[in-house]
Order: sequence, then structure tokens, then C-alpha cells
Amino acid sequence: MKPKLAIITLGVTDMAVAKKFYEQGMGLVPEKESCDSITFYDMNGVWLSLYPKDKLAEDVTISTEGNGFSGVTIAHNEPSKEEVRKVIEQARSAGGRIIKEPQNVFWGGYSGYFEDPDGHLWEIAYNPFVDLT
Amino acid sequence: MKPKLAIITLGVTDMAVAKKFYEQGMGLVPEKESCDSITFYDMNGVWLSLYPKDKLAEDVTISTEGNGFSGVTIAHNEPSKEEVRKVIEQARSAGGRIIKEPQNVFWGGYSGYFEDPDGHLWEIAYNPFVDLT
Repeated sequence: MKPKLAIITLGVTDMAVAKKFYEQGMGLVPEKESCDSITFYDMNGVWLSLYPKDKLAEDVTISTEGNGFSGVTIAHNEPSKEEVRKVIEQARSAGGRIIKEPQNVFWGGYSGYFEDPDGHLWEIAYNPFVDLT
Repeated sequence: MKPKLAIITLGVTDMAVAKKFYEQGMGLVPEKESCDSITFYDMNGVWLSLYPKDKLAEDVTISTEGNGFSGVTIAHNEPSKEEVRKVIEQARSAGGRIIKEPQNVFWGGYSGYFEDPDGHLWEIAYNPFVDLT
């Protein structure tokens, strides 16, 4: 397996709400391959996708039931603490719930977490050691 | 927010088991920034990370409790149906549970799903319309 991710798909319960959050709120622009039933955002070569959670479970062929911590987080890095704070404020303005306000963290960086309207967890981080911005 | 993902973190319950699956099983090579408590794989610019699930929840500042469908899937694409089958067989040999055997799917592609030792869901897909390999 070549070490390359193609798509990270987030199950959503209300596509319009999720699209509003990611597009009007966070400024992402859907790819032309998007349609009513699925939305794609090109995140620099890896696509982020929004798809109804029940249909996603159906595609996997598992039950849609699930609750609590998903065990998955998505990190987006910024080049400075100030930029981290800006993205967290953008998420707050977009209606995202800020779970952890930006702060210095144990590994030597600076980060905060928000969740999207479906509870998917995003870390916004400044990493002074490795540039993944 | 620049449309760029930095790290996808998968919470794991047993790091040794997860590392064995992804490294000996799936052939991924850890980055030098990895250490006993966290593992990073460079997936062509986006890092995939393994981190203890309880510590991940602690970092987010939420409860570690959760079960059932996570609502998140990771897709890895291959350039042909045959290559999809090969990766699914690789996952099977590595001890991954094959949830959906590779098959033609409704959107016109070909894909299968496996779950890793912690239940994280991977789709291995051939997409004849968009090349994300």
C-alpha cells in the first residue's frame, strides 16, 4: 500500500448544516465532483468529504449506531499561535463548539479543539518542531 | 483556514498491536518524530498518527467513552480493481477484519472495507473518475 490517503469522510446528520459550517463558516470550497448527496473539499491533495452518516454506515455495511468519543481527531496546523487563535475564533463564529481553548500543550506546541456540528473533532495547532501547515 | 490537513489521529488501545498491523502488516514506515507514546506515518504530506485512545480523549478534554460507528472513514485509493484486492488481502493477512469484500459499488467504482485492530474503518477503492492514488 502506497502511503497516501485519498479521502477522509465525515458522516453528517444534516448536509445543509454541515456545508454551511465548512463553507460559509470555515471558508472551504466544494469540488465540482460534489453533488446533493456528497460534498468534497480538496485539502491539498487529500479530500475531506461530507456524507450522510446513515448512508456511510450503509456503504460500510455496518450499523449506524454509535455514540461518544469516535477515537479519531483531525489536526489542521497553523504557522503561529496567533493564527491558531484566529481559526478557533472562525470556528466559534461559524457555530462550532470550542472544546479546548487554544493553550500551550505538553508536547511543546500550542493548540485548541473544536467540534463541528456533527461532533467531529478538529485540533488547530501550532507546532514549532515540524511544519505541517 | 488554508485547506490543508496536518494529521489524522487514530486512538488505539494497544500501541504494539496497532504498530504491528500498520508496519509489519500494511508496510508503513514510522517517521523519526515517533516515540514510545505516539507513532506518525507520512501519508504523502498528511500524517497518520497512532496515539493511545485514553490519552487522545484527555488531550481533547473529553471522556474516552464511546462505542459503535465512529462516523469517520479513511479511504485509500488504488489504480485498479486488482490493486484494491491486493490491499484488502494484505489487510486480511495482517489480521484486519474485512467488513466488505471488494465489489463494484453504486457510484461506479470498486471498493472494499476493512477495520484495523481498534475498529477504525478503511475503504480501499478504485475510482475510475478521479485519480486520488
